[in-house]
Amino acid sequence: MSTDWLSHRSEIRVLDCTIRDGGLMNNHHFEDRIVKAVYDACVAGGIDYMEIGYRASRKNIKLGEHGCWKYCQEEDIRRIVGENATALKLSIMADAGKCDYREDIPAKQESVIDLVRVACYVHGDCELEAALELLAPSEAQAIYVVDSFGALYPLQTRRLVQKYLQHAKACGKEVGIHAHNNLQLAYANTIEAIVLGANYLDATMAGLGRGAGNCHMELLLGLLRDPQYQLRPVLQCVAETIEPLRHELGWGFDLPYLLTGLFNQHPRAAIDYNAQPETGDIGAFFDSF
Amino acid sequence: MSTDWLSHRSEIRVLDCTIRDGGLMNNHHFEDRIVKAVYDACVAGGIDYMEIGYRASRKNIKLGEHGCWKYCQEEDIRRIVGENATALKLSIMADAGKCDYREDIPAKQESVIDLVRVACYVHGDCELEAALELLAPSEAQAIYVVDSFGALYPLQTRRLVQKYLQHAKACGKEVGIHAHNNLQLAYANTIEAIVLGANYLDATMAGLGRGAGNCHMELLLGLLRDPQYQLRPVLQCVAETIEPLRHELGWGFDLPYLLTGLFNQHPRAAIDYNAQPETGDIGAFFDSF
Repeated sequence: MSTDWLSHRSEIRVLDCTIRDGGLMNNHHFEDRIVKAVYDACVAGGIDYMEIGYRASRKNIKLGEHGCWKYCQEEDIRRIVGENATALKLSIMADAGKCDYREDIPAKQESVIDLVRVACYVHGDCELEAALELLAPSEAQAIYVVDSFGALYPLQTRRLVQKYLQHAKACGKEVGIHAHNNLQLAYANTIEAIVLGANYLDATMAGLGRGAGNCHMELLLGLLRDPQYQLRPVLQCVAETIEPLRHELGWGFDLPYLLTGLFNQHPRAAIDYNAQPETGDIGAFFDSF
Repeated sequence: MSTDWLSHRSEIRVLDCTIRDGGLMNNHHFEDRIVKAVYDACVAGGIDYMEIGYRASRKNIKLGEHGCWKYCQEEDIRRIVGENATALKLSIMADAGKCDYREDIPAKQESVIDLVRVACYVHGDCELEAALELLAPSEAQAIYVVDSFGALYPLQTRRLVQKYLQHAKACGKEVGIHAHNNLQLAYANTIEAIVLGANYLDATMAGLGRGAGNCHMELLLGLLRDPQYQLRPVLQCVAETIEPLRHELGWGFDLPYLLTGLFNQHPRAAIDYNAQPETGDIGAFFDSF
């Protein structure tokens, strides 16, 4: 084991992506009071980064088709955070291919944004090796293992994190982990990554995120023995602000999400299954894989 | 790593304890149709053992105070399983101190019960060492690591399972794991134990069990690559029989159970918190630890 996982490690950065990943469950239509409550809890909880949404090109969009957290224009962000005179840093996510960095990403001095994370898609071991060789010497400060389908077991997470660390550490970069909960392993996979040396850790309030959701922030902060992090404001945000959304947004572990995770599939089939007006036939859904 | 965890291992035994552990959430009052549905799913799913309830002394009891699965008299069990002419074996649990083995445990030829598991309570590392030294040469066929409070992290599970294996294997015994989900780690801890060589694996349909519940059977069978086990009948039992009980029985991960797990406390404080007629104050509950 490369580290004592229960001890303090000053390189750790906790990133809340409740509004960004949760936005995939409500087409990015969060009321301002929800975004503000998450922001306030992140500040009070000593969390390092809050990812407030996506940044995407607005060319040819149909106004009103998506909530504003799909685009995160500066005025939307500032409506929540003002000048963000706090220790919390702000992040946005840009999907490779859906954002033009020359037009859509402003210079630092014009923006309250501190971090841009770029989602890109790599399939298969050969591609991964090539991608890591490209990314390691790039200007990025960290490279994430992302389990979008929630299909990884801890031992598979271990192999991936070890591979990422080899490439990243040689170039002075950090490795991050972003897990999904289809197999109820988001937290366990995050712990596995921490033990190995991953320092950028994604989590969301109440696990709110696409499909089965993410690693719960309240679990992650319960683990980290760093007085920087405060669990109490996170518990209150979860109980008072996020859990009341569960019925409407419908994220969290269930059988259809288990099955897409088990068969390493995109959760959209499970989202469709759950959106049916009548209760589905889980046996028939199982047979469809 | 002592084994290839994804491969078949013929020594593995899966034990369903839905009715036994779930009985702690409804005072053992399951309707026969529920017990029968779990039994049928266990048979169809190729599960090795079903633990149908507790066996306890009936001296000085108040009739009707508890449901019949607190006592599992032979006629109650036979009402569900008949002569149990199946490959499924039946188990009961006897709490040390609440059962007199001379009176309450009949001879094998008078009973459909195949296995008696004895719950006993050991606190602290010194006691554990002494208990393992007593148990290893006993007549028991397996010794379980039991995380009743759902407080173990995978690395702690690892240390315990390794210690148990040392004692047990020297005497030809198996090691088992019974996990709770307060930290969403019941399945991860079970995987950790499997990898190390634990062969008796507890799980419940939909995770039904005390407090945050147990390792989900549908997750465990999804992992085991043994054609003996069939996921489909388990999925149907979960969807059609167990999930409809969730509102009434109220098991499963939530913030109060997270906190009792995090602080390594019995879940009763969380059960009381959840039983309040009005929504509690999670911040005050956190402060109470």
